[in-house]
Parts: sequence; C-alpha cells; structure tokens
Amino acid sequence: MRAEIISVGTELLLGEIVDTNAVFLSQELAALGIELYHRTTVGDNAPRLKQALTEALARVDLVITSGGLGPTNDDLTKETVAEALGLSLVLDRSSLEWIEEYFARTGRSMTENNYKQALIPEGGVALPNPKGTAPGVSVRKEGKWVVCLPGPPRELIPMFRDHVRPLLQAESQGVIRSRVLRLCGMGESVLVKEIADLLANQTNPTLAPLASEGEVRLRITAAAETVAQAEVAIADLESKLRARLGRTIYGVDDETLEAVVVSLLQERGETLAVAESCTGGLLANRITDVPGASAVFDRGVVTYSNRSKAELLGIPATVFERVGAVSTEVATLMAQGVRDRAGSDWGVGITGIAGPGGGTAEKPVGLVYYALVGPGVNLVREARFTGDRQQIKRRTTQTVLDLLRRTLLP
Amino acid sequence: MRAEIISVGTELLLGEIVDTNAVFLSQELAALGIELYHRTTVGDNAPRLKQALTEALARVDLVITSGGLGPTNDDLTKETVAEALGLSLVLDRSSLEWIEEYFARTGRSMTENNYKQALIPEGGVALPNPKGTAPGVSVRKEGKWVVCLPGPPRELIPMFRDHVRPLLQAESQGVIRSRVLRLCGMGESVLVKEIADLLANQTNPTLAPLASEGEVRLRITAAAETVAQAEVAIADLESKLRARLGRTIYGVDDETLEAVVVSLLQERGETLAVAESCTGGLLANRITDVPGASAVFDRGVVTYSNRSKAELLGIPATVFERVGAVSTEVATLMAQGVRDRAGSDWGVGITGIAGPGGGTAEKPVGLVYYALVGPGVNLVREARFTGDRQQIKRRTTQTVLDLLRRTLLP
Repeated sequence: MRAEIISVGTELLLGEIVDTNAVFLSQELAALGIELYHRTTVGDNAPRLKQALTEALARVDLVITSGGLGPTNDDLTKETVAEALGLSLVLDRSSLEWIEEYFARTGRSMTENNYKQALIPEGGVALPNPKGTAPGVSVRKEGKWVVCLPGPPRELIPMFRDHVRPLLQAESQGVIRSRVLRLCGMGESVLVKEIADLLANQTNPTLAPLASEGEVRLRITAAAETVAQAEVAIADLESKLRARLGRTIYGVDDETLEAVVVSLLQERGETLAVAESCTGGLLANRITDVPGASAVFDRGVVTYSNRSKAELLGIPATVFERVGAVSTEVATLMAQGVRDRAGSDWGVGITGIAGPGGGTAEKPVGLVYYALVGPGVNLVREARFTGDRQQIKRRTTQTVLDLLRRTLLP
Repeated sequence: MRAEIISVGTELLLGEIVDTNAVFLSQELAALGIELYHRTTVGDNAPRLKQALTEALARVDLVITSGGLGPTNDDLTKETVAEALGLSLVLDRSSLEWIEEYFARTGRSMTENNYKQALIPEGGVALPNPKGTAPGVSVRKEGKWVVCLPGPPRELIPMFRDHVRPLLQAESQGVIRSRVLRLCGMGESVLVKEIADLLANQTNPTLAPLASEGEVRLRITAAAETVAQAEVAIADLESKLRARLGRTIYGVDDETLEAVVVSLLQERGETLAVAESCTGGLLANRITDVPGASAVFDRGVVTYSNRSKAELLGIPATVFERVGAVSTEVATLMAQGVRDRAGSDWGVGITGIAGPGGGTAEKPVGLVYYALVGPGVNLVREARFTGDRQQIKRRTTQTVLDLLRRTLLP
C-alpha cells in the first residue's frame, strides 16, 4: 500500500510549531511496510487543502491528514475531505453523545461550534478521541481511503495507535524493517568509495549513507513478507558491511559514541578522568549524558588558564614558557596529571585553539593536541579542525571519544 | 512574492529526522513577508522530486529546496532542478577551487564524487558554504526562481542568512521586520496571562509567544513601508513589554543566556569558576561556547565522586556522612571551594540527581541544590526538575545561569 500525509495548519507554515505528527506518522507507516513518497503541508485554507487532497488521491490509495478538526471556523478538514470525495456531511450520533458527555464531565458548557465536531462524511466511521473533543474519521470511497486525525500530538498519537494502526495492519502486505549502522573515523566520500559495489544496483535491502557532525550513518532497509525475513536480509548485508568496515562501525540505531565508550569502560571495570582546555567541558558533558556514567567517570577538570593547569594538574610553569600551552607536551602532561591525581585507569588531555580569536600563523584556530594515557598506552595526536568554535569543540570530542573507543576495544 | 519549500530526503519520509530546516525557512519567509502556502517533502528520488518541482513552479515564483547536494549518487537535487528547468549542468570554477582548498586545508583526499558538487545549472549562481563542501545554488529562468540549499542545518542556516535573505529582501515589496525577546524565569502560561491585553486584538505589529527548553521567546513582527517605520513599531511594543516584564527579558534575537552572563562578567571585570556534579560539565561547556569566555572563566571542575569533591574542593568527608552529597551544605562548599582555589570573584556549586537511577523517596531524581558565592553574595537554592537525564542537566544549567545573570545585573 502507498500513502501520503497532509499536515493542515497555518501555524506550521509560519514556522511556529514543529510538525512532530508527520515524523510520528512517517515512522509508523515505515514500520508497517506502507510506502510513503510525499508529505505535504497546507494552511487552514479550503481550496488549497482540496487541491492537495485531489493530487494525493490521484497518486496513492491512502491519505492521512492531521489537524483542522477543532471547533473553530478555520477548522475545515472534514468538510474539505467530504467535498474532495463528493460526499455530504452527516451527524454521527455516537460522537455527539461522546462530546455532550465530555462537556458534562468537565463541567464546561458546549457551544454551537462543538456540534460541528460530530459531523462526519457519509459512510465514514468516527474514531474516538479520549483526550479531546474532536473525533477522527476514516472514510473510503471507490478504492480510496482518507483518515483524518486531530492536530494535537497527545490526541493524534493514541488515536492512531488504538484505532488506525489495527486497520492498517489488517490491510498491509509485508513489512519494512531498517537498521542504522553508525560510523566514525571515515568521511562520507571515502566511505562511498569503499562500499561503491554495495551501493550500486541495490534494490532490497537498500543502503543509504547520511553524514552528520563527525560521523556517518548507513541505513539498511529491507522489505519482506515477515519480520523474520526482513531481519535476515538486514543481518546479511550488515555482516558484509562489518567485514568491509570493521572498527569504523561504532554502534547501531540510537547508540551514541559516548555510550559505547562508557559501556566499554564498564565491561573492563576501568575508570576515566579528563582534563580539557579548548573543549571547555564538552567531553565531560557528553560522557555524563550517559546513564550510569558515574560508575566509570571519576572527574573532569576544565583548565582554561595556565594557572589552573599548574594547580589542578601539576604542570610546571616552565613548560608553558618553553613550548606553549597548545603543544603535545602539555596535552600529555594534562592526561598524565589528571590520571595520577584521580587515580583512574585512563586519563585524557586536550589543548587547542577553538577560536574565533587566539590563532596565529604557527598555531591557527582549529589546531588541537590530545593525549590518552592508560595501562601500557601513551598516545598523543595533532589534529586540525575547521568550523566555528562549537564545531571545533564538537569535532575534537568526537575524535577523542573515537580514539578512546578504538583503544578500549578488545 | 509567493514561495514553496521542498524538503528532499528519504530519511525525512522514514521519520528518522525532524525537518527543522522547514521550520527555519518558514519563519524566515514569514519575517520577509513572503507568502508560503505549501511545503512538500519527497525522498531521494529524481522522478518524484521533478514532479514536486514542476507542480510548485506552476503555482509560485520561488521554490526553495533543502537537501540532496551531497557527494553521493542519491544526492540529485541540482541535476533534477536543471532538468525541471530545461537547463544543463556546468562546472562552477569558484566552487571547485573552494572544494579543493577545503580538502587541502583539512588534509583529506578529494574523491571523484566531490567534483560533482561543483556542478551547477547553467546561468545559476553558486552560494558559498563555509561550513561544508556542498555549495548552494540560485537559478532563475523565465520569471521562475529556484534556490537549492544543503540539508545539514549548520550549513543551511548560515547560507540562507548570508546569501539568500539579502536577495529576497531586495525583491520583496514593503518590509517585514521582527525581533525576538528572550525570557527566562517565567513559564509560558503565566506570561500569556501577564500580557493578555497585548496578545489580544493584535494586528500590526503581531506578537507570538513560543516556549522552548527552559525559556520563552516572544516574537514581535511588524509590516511597514520602510525599515525605519517597522523598527519604530517594534520598538514601541518592545518598550511596553519591557516595562511589564523587566528583568525576565534576558536578551534579544540570537543572544544566549550564557553569552549574556559572559558579557556581564566582562563589563564588571570579574571572573568565574564552577564546580559541577550532576550537570557533569554542561555549565562549563555552555560558558566556554561563548567566544572570549577565557577572559572571565578561569576553571571548572566536574566532581562526580565524593573523593574528587574532597580532593579538588577541600570538602571534608564527614560532611558527606552527615548530610549526603546532595545537600545545600555541599552545594555551598563546592561554590566556596572552587572560588577559593581559583581565586576568582564568583564561584558556583551544583549537586543533584540527574537520574534515571540514584533517586530515593527523600531525594528523588530531579532534586538539585545550587549555590552562588561572590562579593557580598552567598546564595543557595533547591530546585526540582522533571524530564530525562539530559533535560534535567539542561534545566539546571539554565536556572543557574539565570541566577548568575540576575545577580550580576546592575
């Protein structure tokens, strides 16, 4: 089955609210194996909504709308759907009773407009709304099917789950499952070359790369008759990718790099302490975003001044005079200093120039030194990052977390 | 002028990412007085993108696309726009030079695919992308105008602001100006009651509240014949709001709470040091996100363990036994300890339970104590936040930064 989503609401087109309903419905349709090729957003305007409905019904069998079911005059989705399908609106007794009861129960008085909410296109079925007054509608005519859902997510989500999903499950053939592999330490264009043969001529499962800040995601999507078959197809392609990409793959689906590092430390029963200069606490912040981080993370110090590097990490002032604060020596002394003082298994030191000021020809903005010390490990690296201050901070922590991950892997 | 937005990306239709670009572009178009009646989302599929472009170009003069400018084979926006407009693709020398320079600077090697990114529809203008490799495109033909922007918001937003907005401003009749007031320390529902009379019956300027994490934004939008007239109308409403809301307004437009705090410290010539437990470095990270923070921020310590609180802040072990690590006493001793050791003017201490584990009936998840000490100031507060671990961290730092701001204000 193929579907389209039409989101109705002028507030969406003004950018006043984010259309989380469209995201929710897209995920649900994907999980049901229903193909979604278009989403459209229109304002509270009958002619434009009618046009969008007509175009969508010409392309697909199922159209799901969200919004425009309220009691006010600019709520006109049901009226317009009825018109687009050539149906009249009729009073739905059970919806009227429900609305009357709702007002009696909440002690509010019902207005003329609320009666409008009990009207549905003839031949349609009202979908109960336990969280509000606007019932939804499911209506079919000549092989075309329109489902109208209310705009507020706390009404739309339970209505979809309780009353629409079961109808769709009954109709849909097959399932679609997907899995995302997350990669770090390889750019998108190099990745695309490495797996060019797997990306070419793909049909089922499909494979799609997506670059984001400091990492690349690879989405595998399989269509099959059963969940088990889809999962086999995904596992098969995943194992080919893992054989090719190895440790570059750090996690799957929603796993973050910091969560992988915390869980590796937990498995090893080891602890970490970090000393940051240019990243200003972002590394500690990312690690402590992971639930349970306190078991492996002892402390972090953000040593922005040379004095604080001396006091908190024991780095002699002569070092700054000799090689400067942004140097391999200082990165190493920071990692060793924080590890020694915390008595942790691992220590990280980061020093660099996040900008926008503070750069020189010799030590430009984006230059970063980072060190990792631990049992039998003593690494120090130089990197040059581009971007603004926040990007340089982000990219530095991504690189450091990836070095930690690769070092901790068995 | 009328416009439509087409968002391109299969990941959008699978519900894997939220289309924040569409929200940003919608707000920008509204602010420019450009009418937006449709938004469409299609996948990485040339025929469907072409159909969407053709339909949109039949309805309006300006179509803005986002996404599909990357180096891989499923990035096909420019190719499809060229086809829809009946234009061929040509090499843009300046874009190629820029891309080559980008790869040279970052020390990565350029692949064949990256050359594709320097192709643009003939007669078009490449829009520079300082945040990535994919240039944008602006191309006109026979009264129709298509602007192609990259998908990553970090690239799309600056490209729009620097290169597209000026072009749109030059074309639009009359002007629309807007100004956002940013508020902290008052919930949206209280705010709406406080300014109910100003929200009612508004026509020009309009006033729209928008709640986000730990703050509320109030957008004032004025339409006028000239910029000067629009600015007078905005200033007039702004002064009424400021008289009513006072110090609850912390900034305007893109100003962040942390930037306001850093600039207040700079004005006073004072310094700050912070000691964090449950926020895990997020406060230091937010402060060091502000360019120039190094002039006022000496150091931060993330003392996750009691031992680190003892060693780095001099808190006696008996205190933990007597009142526990999550207590007003420990918050105060953290603030005093970090201030004394850093020799800074101000010290902050934060201790609490970010969850999801670690809560008890007496000290539940979300309980936070925070202290601020400085010249003649010795404050300690209790707060109870809801949400997940990251929300509790975020809301805590928002509250602490707001306390700092209000204390530092003249």
